[in-house]
Amino acid sequence: MSLDLGEAKTVAFIGLGNMGAPMAEHLFRAGYRLRVYARRPETAAPFAELGATVVASPAAAAREVDFVCVMVTNTSDVEAVLLGPGGAAEGAAPGTLCIVFSTISAIAARKIALAVAEKGIDFIDAPVSGGVKAAREGSLAIMVGGNPEALEKARPLLELLGKAITHVGPVGSGQLAKACNQIVQVVNIQGIAEAMHFARENGGDPDKILAAIAPGFAGSRMLEMMGPKMAKRDFSAGIEARLHEKDFRIVKEIADKSGINLPAVTLVARQLGVLMEKGWGYDDTSSLLKVLEVQQGSDA
Amino acid sequence: MSLDLGEAKTVAFIGLGNMGAPMAEHLFRAGYRLRVYARRPETAAPFAELGATVVASPAAAAREVDFVCVMVTNTSDVEAVLLGPGGAAEGAAPGTLCIVFSTISAIAARKIALAVAEKGIDFIDAPVSGGVKAAREGSLAIMVGGNPEALEKARPLLELLGKAITHVGPVGSGQLAKACNQIVQVVNIQGIAEAMHFARENGGDPDKILAAIAPGFAGSRMLEMMGPKMAKRDFSAGIEARLHEKDFRIVKEIADKSGINLPAVTLVARQLGVLMEKGWGYDDTSSLLKVLEVQQGSDA
Repeated sequence: MSLDLGEAKTVAFIGLGNMGAPMAEHLFRAGYRLRVYARRPETAAPFAELGATVVASPAAAAREVDFVCVMVTNTSDVEAVLLGPGGAAEGAAPGTLCIVFSTISAIAARKIALAVAEKGIDFIDAPVSGGVKAAREGSLAIMVGGNPEALEKARPLLELLGKAITHVGPVGSGQLAKACNQIVQVVNIQGIAEAMHFARENGGDPDKILAAIAPGFAGSRMLEMMGPKMAKRDFSAGIEARLHEKDFRIVKEIADKSGINLPAVTLVARQLGVLMEKGWGYDDTSSLLKVLEVQQGSDA
Repeated sequence: MSLDLGEAKTVAFIGLGNMGAPMAEHLFRAGYRLRVYARRPETAAPFAELGATVVASPAAAAREVDFVCVMVTNTSDVEAVLLGPGGAAEGAAPGTLCIVFSTISAIAARKIALAVAEKGIDFIDAPVSGGVKAAREGSLAIMVGGNPEALEKARPLLELLGKAITHVGPVGSGQLAKACNQIVQVVNIQGIAEAMHFARENGGDPDKILAAIAPGFAGSRMLEMMGPKMAKRDFSAGIEARLHEKDFRIVKEIADKSGINLPAVTLVARQLGVLMEKGWGYDDTSSLLKVLEVQQGSDA
């Protein structure tokens, strides 16, 4: 998909990690003019080679652009690159549309939207699901919160990155959907880990059991992805568990603040905590199986 | 699919409930001669009309048949209809193959297999997944434990009932796979319930959130089935929660006996226990959402 160069839009892309880099590249290859900023210069270098403009600050990236795209990991990073000194809000002109792809809390998303609105900058939250593979393929699921006009303005850009673009509601709603996505996904991974642990402890063949259960009601995207990894004991990421741990901290924080009863989330947050203590945060979330095994050992 | 009538085999089918009835009917319509027994005569009546032979005991059903199929709910029922007074083992000739579709523990399956073997009766455990819909469509996932020759003998019959027939291992392995299936499935339902609860408590639109997360890593058979039910607050079965509660008691019992660490199973077993206490056992397992809500209320 290539844009008419006569109307080529300019995008500032901030955050060129595992997810951000392939997303930014899709936009560049589709004809968007690209201004990139990354904290680590080495991640920006390939974009200089491509022909994108590499700049020294988010503020510089955001100068005279149509869109400011943000894909950094933590809430504090999102706030810093948008609202901090040298942040994009300093450089961006009124009417610029800021698209935050990062997974942060809905509350943080609303706060940031209000802060950039003071400079006349529009905002949508657009967290994604599908991991690095979907980012590379341009097949992310994108959950959008914001006003419909802003989404329509962003849609041609989003369509280069994802197949399923769903408008969930006002600003923050994308993050609410993403939180739900993470709850369902990681609780499912915990269940798969317990099934694999149960199978092995009972002398079952994990591969055959996976083959037997995948066509039934146990079937899921996570079973397809995580089941074989657990069966092979290949705990390399995949999806880095530290990201799920971060997301579960966000969910727990919101749930605790408002007194929402989420017992499985509480349990999985605890399991992810043990995973982090063990130093497996950069491994795959299938490592939740190893957490069960070390707990088993400590009970014995 | 119809059999050559010259080699029409005879099947005793014991248990004609929501699952057993459509399964038995598939066999009958494919040309198997059918002898049925059901505890409740009204469930057998339609089979008399079809032209099947309705008999007064499992022993009578099992006389001069090639296969004895069992689809009753509880372990005690399986034992009674096979090994009790008037049970199928009394009527069946040596060489008969007994196929237990019920979900029971792997340990119970092995015990029963040994008991019927004393009468020269072969045995496979063949628990299924896919619910009433798949039973009607003949699209069950069937997880088989037993020796490969017995499975090959049963395969033409099983192929009328399911698309995915997986040989998992020796007797009991089908049950082990089914236990894993239930762990993954019901822990997933719990996660979906928590996501829906979280969404609602945060003012989210459940339908839009489901639409947003289904195409991503949260996607599963259960999300497709249970998500819309929870969003509409339609808790009618579906899958009767009491069956999952029974299955989780089996899993918990095995896990506790052998000291296997399954924290999410323990949690979900507890939630299912509350569900039963509330009298929702004949409702759908999506009622796990209502359990969260009553717990929420009691915390407040």
